[in-house]
Amino acid sequence: MPQPLTHPDRLLPADSGVRRIARSLLESVQGLPILSPHGHVDAAVIEQNTPFPDPAALLVSPDHYVTRLIHASGVPLGRLRTSADTEPNPREVWREFCKAWPLFDGTASGHWLRDQFQFVFGLSQLPSPESSDLLYDEISAKLQEETFRPRQLFKDFNIEVLATTDDPLDMLESHQALADDPTFHGRVLPTFRPDAYLNIAHPDWAGNVERLIAAAGDGGTGYSAYLTALENRRRYFIDHGAVSADHGVMTPATLKLDAADAARLFDRARSGQAGPRERDAFEAHMLYQMARMSVEDGLVMTIHPGSFRNHHTPTFEAFGADTGHDIPVAVNYTEAIRPLLQDFGTAKDFHLVLFTLDETVFSRELAPLAGFYPSVYLGAPWWFLDAPDAMLRFRSAVTESAGFSRFSGFIDDTRAFCSIPARHEASRRVEASFLARLVAEHRIDEERAFEIMIDTVDTSPRRAFKL
Amino acid sequence: MPQPLTHPDRLLPADSGVRRIARSLLESVQGLPILSPHGHVDAAVIEQNTPFPDPAALLVSPDHYVTRLIHASGVPLGRLRTSADTEPNPREVWREFCKAWPLFDGTASGHWLRDQFQFVFGLSQLPSPESSDLLYDEISAKLQEETFRPRQLFKDFNIEVLATTDDPLDMLESHQALADDPTFHGRVLPTFRPDAYLNIAHPDWAGNVERLIAAAGDGGTGYSAYLTALENRRRYFIDHGAVSADHGVMTPATLKLDAADAARLFDRARSGQAGPRERDAFEAHMLYQMARMSVEDGLVMTIHPGSFRNHHTPTFEAFGADTGHDIPVAVNYTEAIRPLLQDFGTAKDFHLVLFTLDETVFSRELAPLAGFYPSVYLGAPWWFLDAPDAMLRFRSAVTESAGFSRFSGFIDDTRAFCSIPARHEASRRVEASFLARLVAEHRIDEERAFEIMIDTVDTSPRRAFKL
Amino acid sequence: MPQPLTHPDRLLPADSGVRRIARSLLESVQGLPILSPHGHVDAAVIEQNTPFPDPAALLVSPDHYVTRLIHASGVPLGRLRTSADTEPNPREVWREFCKAWPLFDGTASGHWLRDQFQFVFGLSQLPSPESSDLLYDEISAKLQEETFRPRQLFKDFNIEVLATTDDPLDMLESHQALADDPTFHGRVLPTFRPDAYLNIAHPDWAGNVERLIAAAGDGGTGYSAYLTALENRRRYFIDHGAVSADHGVMTPATLKLDAADAARLFDRARSGQAGPRERDAFEAHMLYQMARMSVEDGLVMTIHPGSFRNHHTPTFEAFGADTGHDIPVAVNYTEAIRPLLQDFGTAKDFHLVLFTLDETVFSRELAPLAGFYPSVYLGAPWWFLDAPDAMLRFRSAVTESAGFSRFSGFIDDTRAFCSIPARHEASRRVEASFLARLVAEHRIDEERAFEIMIDTVDTSPRRAFKL
Repeated sequence: MPQPLTHPDRLLPADSGVRRIARSLLESVQGLPILSPHGHVDAAVIEQNTPFPDPAALLVSPDHYVTRLIHASGVPLGRLRTSADTEPNPREVWREFCKAWPLFDGTASGHWLRDQFQFVFGLSQLPSPESSDLLYDEISAKLQEETFRPRQLFKDFNIEVLATTDDPLDMLESHQALADDPTFHGRVLPTFRPDAYLNIAHPDWAGNVERLIAAAGDGGTGYSAYLTALENRRRYFIDHGAVSADHGVMTPATLKLDAADAARLFDRARSGQAGPRERDAFEAHMLYQMARMSVEDGLVMTIHPGSFRNHHTPTFEAFGADTGHDIPVAVNYTEAIRPLLQDFGTAKDFHLVLFTLDETVFSRELAPLAGFYPSVYLGAPWWFLDAPDAMLRFRSAVTESAGFSRFSGFIDDTRAFCSIPARHEASRRVEASFLARLVAEHRIDEERAFEIMIDTVDTSPRRAFKL
Repeated sequence: MPQPLTHPDRLLPADSGVRRIARSLLESVQGLPILSPHGHVDAAVIEQNTPFPDPAALLVSPDHYVTRLIHASGVPLGRLRTSADTEPNPREVWREFCKAWPLFDGTASGHWLRDQFQFVFGLSQLPSPESSDLLYDEISAKLQEETFRPRQLFKDFNIEVLATTDDPLDMLESHQALADDPTFHGRVLPTFRPDAYLNIAHPDWAGNVERLIAAAGDGGTGYSAYLTALENRRRYFIDHGAVSADHGVMTPATLKLDAADAARLFDRARSGQAGPRERDAFEAHMLYQMARMSVEDGLVMTIHPGSFRNHHTPTFEAFGADTGHDIPVAVNYTEAIRPLLQDFGTAKDFHLVLFTLDETVFSRELAPLAGFYPSVYLGAPWWFLDAPDAMLRFRSAVTESAGFSRFSGFIDDTRAFCSIPARHEASRRVEASFLARLVAEHRIDEERAFEIMIDTVDTSPRRAFKL
Repeated sequence: MPQPLTHPDRLLPADSGVRRIARSLLESVQGLPILSPHGHVDAAVIEQNTPFPDPAALLVSPDHYVTRLIHASGVPLGRLRTSADTEPNPREVWREFCKAWPLFDGTASGHWLRDQFQFVFGLSQLPSPESSDLLYDEISAKLQEETFRPRQLFKDFNIEVLATTDDPLDMLESHQALADDPTFHGRVLPTFRPDAYLNIAHPDWAGNVERLIAAAGDGGTGYSAYLTALENRRRYFIDHGAVSADHGVMTPATLKLDAADAARLFDRARSGQAGPRERDAFEAHMLYQMARMSVEDGLVMTIHPGSFRNHHTPTFEAFGADTGHDIPVAVNYTEAIRPLLQDFGTAKDFHLVLFTLDETVFSRELAPLAGFYPSVYLGAPWWFLDAPDAMLRFRSAVTESAGFSRFSGFIDDTRAFCSIPARHEASRRVEASFLARLVAEHRIDEERAFEIMIDTVDTSPRRAFKL
């Protein structure tokens, strides 16, 4: 009988006493469903229930966590991803991945993949040059089975809620079809993500704005039609089940402009005349406007700042966005977010979930903000920080001043559908480990730890994301 | 017999071997008195020995650590604190607190409160909606007893030194009365805190300066009388027992101006003409001047930078300052403090204690500065960082380059008199835990750990604060 | 029989299960040679094989880690170091050091010294006022023995490669002599360090440039001769065994200027007309040029940014540079290094090792950069961060996103020849401790941990530094 690829105590603390507590905490939430209020799975994949094409397309090529580290080891991206010039053979991509497998030791990606190999695909060996073709064939065969269709996996993964991330003009047909389908029991919710309509520096901004106003501006033109169109499209999303609007920004700067100034900047931007300061001011103002709309329509507002997108232009030009070279920068929230919080920080039912790629704001800014403003929730450690040690650093940094109640729950933020259970499982193991330490250090009662465990895994995301 | 509310091993490490060492280290300092060289207790409370009014006024309403987290959970501040419009009923405040008690699990405040419930009030149950009225009555009854008067508690808490924080024009009558009272054996020392006289942006700055010069300017006017008045009031404080001058600033920027330039900026500021840059320059210059005065008169200089005060204007307008929405910002010391250190960094008997709310400067700037300049001492982790994990991060970040000798000792920085023992006890437990780990990892000898433990708890604050 | 000064399990984790794994990992690399690809030992010391003068000159006076902390305790530097005015007696220096010994408890320096006392000098007591003269005599006697000559120690320390740091105009005679000596079996490699020729603010910049162009500019003048001279001297270094070029900069800003603009700025700088912005632009451009040259000639490029040099001018004026008051500042890599990486980030065989004194960039910027760009390697924790807890923080911060393969190996960066084994040993112990924890937490397989241990200690520096 083959050795299992994973250990039942993986990610739990080494100390046997602490581990025992952590195990109990983990067991106590084992039956709870997955709530995934922020991610990047395509709703059409679930709706159309198409089989996944092949191991490379499922597990390697689209996952920038995976391709980036193989690229760093010297393998050209063209051997892993499709570009205008290249269309790598899936079996060859898989071979590159298997050869590169040792690179992933100790990484979050490596952990998630191993969990998938064990629990989704039931593999009995790890990737290696020797096992490559065998594993490819084994997974490929599985992918043809009925039980590996997206809808069955959705059910087997015990997903209750899965939020997607969508363009404001998306008609959300797949979401509608799923909601209308009496045979599908999960909730697949759209998320309003208007970056490409707010960020003037985006190459398609002017065109996007044009299309937006034409589609939903109630016949108007100019700034006020732009606001109306955004409001209308948010309403459309809400009508299709959306609970949140997400904002990926370089900085979380916010600014309140009066309508005339905003309109003037908008017009200058549309005619290409706005300088960098005007663009910054307008974008900060629009982040403020998004909060205003959230206060009015109830969509939870989430902010993901501080990623320098597409750091390496030649790679971007060949392979497009989201190909592994978005690099974080330092972030400051306290002064940047203040104009927004001055006006909406205590607004009734307004929920604002703040994320960061810059750990320094955990204890310095985020916990203090979430520990005062009823609207502010702590976003889970995200992207490069979505890993056991980093999640423990987050917990250690925020809990002592903000407690557990201000947490908005784990988000998997993933395009990789089959990694969802592994990511949530890892998060639960880390939460159990942290709580177990506090129990062992007599900092919280064991009984309360069990309540907090359920709150963290289940109640927090339901509360913060209004699920 | 009821369960005690606290565990004897609370905050000690989970590993049994390390815990054993930590316990011994902790026991070795159990008899040592509390030295509190920086805090916000009102000297009049001790002097007049008035009974504490009620549980809410003692433990909830004035404690921004406590009200902020309840506020974040959605309870309006007006149900917890007095404003122009509201005067909440103490028993109702206490009920809100008891209902909110689970919010404090895992927080420093929760830990301190629990310790107080056990060791100051001898309670046998934790706060909850059910226990609320009972606990209120139980604590209220205690507060009427002679043994719960401030002076008896001062003695029972084994406080040797308690520093207050005072306005430069305060006449320090309570301090004087306590010093003159042969029946009172503690030391209650004033601290010179001139922020409202140095910070031009302070709403009362011009009026404060007016009063200062009138009161202590030796009949002069203008900048030189301003300096003279500050020097005179420092002298007055020293004559009343002060050992330190404290400075709460947005940034620790310092600047040496020549007297003519400084005088010109001072005059422009008084007439309301100074622009932002001139204000910044003048304030940086005055921080430099405070160091110059400390070199001359021997007051230890402490700097508490990096708190954005009163972040939420509507709350400030309704409830005033110190109501839970001061939010930290990033701080840089290396270049900011350099002009001061260039001239005074090696001055004889000059002591400069540097604090931070931005953990990033622990290893990057503070340990390197304190590891070279004989004047620079490491301030204890402060405010949001005054908690077990944060204190361990501080120790881990500074010890490897600066050792233990540059520490200035724990400060409780508190308004909450009854929390003082709990805070010092928590600090001692954390110090013992850190040292125990170094012993267990064979990084220091056990014998030396006992010496360092005493040095940390007792010798360091005496040395750094010239007690 | 005297107690040994060090414990066999020093720096290993307290938990007995984790420690057992760490011990095995440590043992597995015990025979591996020391590879020291970046440091500050003088090649002439090895070449001429001169006996070390005395204990103070060997262990105290030149080591800024050591003198700084004694200075912070109130001992004037003139009692420890030579200045224009003072020439302290070595035995007195040693007495100061022995008196100050307790300051070093818990510090990296203290740990290294203790290891040297045990393993290099075989002492049987620690420094103290009582043992001072005895230890002085004991060490002095040893220093006279043949076995304590540099070449014998080099062999006994099992050093395979030792890189020095050298001025671009250095003729590298000692390196040449060592390479030519058939009786010497180590590799002593020069490192090209052109800071004083690139940094316009350096007091000798203009003169240095003059000498550089005269020596190696192929008869030309101006900017193009300057580039040629740098290229020629790099070639000379390569011909003498150099594998890397090192750059100590305030910020890692890079910029591509066209040749005409660069030439114009160069001329303005030489004539003293360049303003601060022009100087910054030129220096950023020259860092870009250094990368360009590295791509062409194959020298590994290392960047050590973020140290504010000579913070205390009076000390600098009396005692010179590298005397303990270089203080780190915040660093940002993501945007600063981008122009360089845009053009050379994926260049064939280009190796760029990025260091930092600002821990915040570990997880935020360095791991993400090294996890994508094949050229970027993670520099080891350096200077103030070259200590057990800091090294563990580094590992924890970078491994989860970049894995182990992007590490460039430990560097000792030291002037203190006899501390080299202690520093490498400490690093190996920390690496073993980190890996042991991951094994105990079932995050990597034990078998793989042994492979990674060897990779970290041996293969990584060979690969990253092209040894």
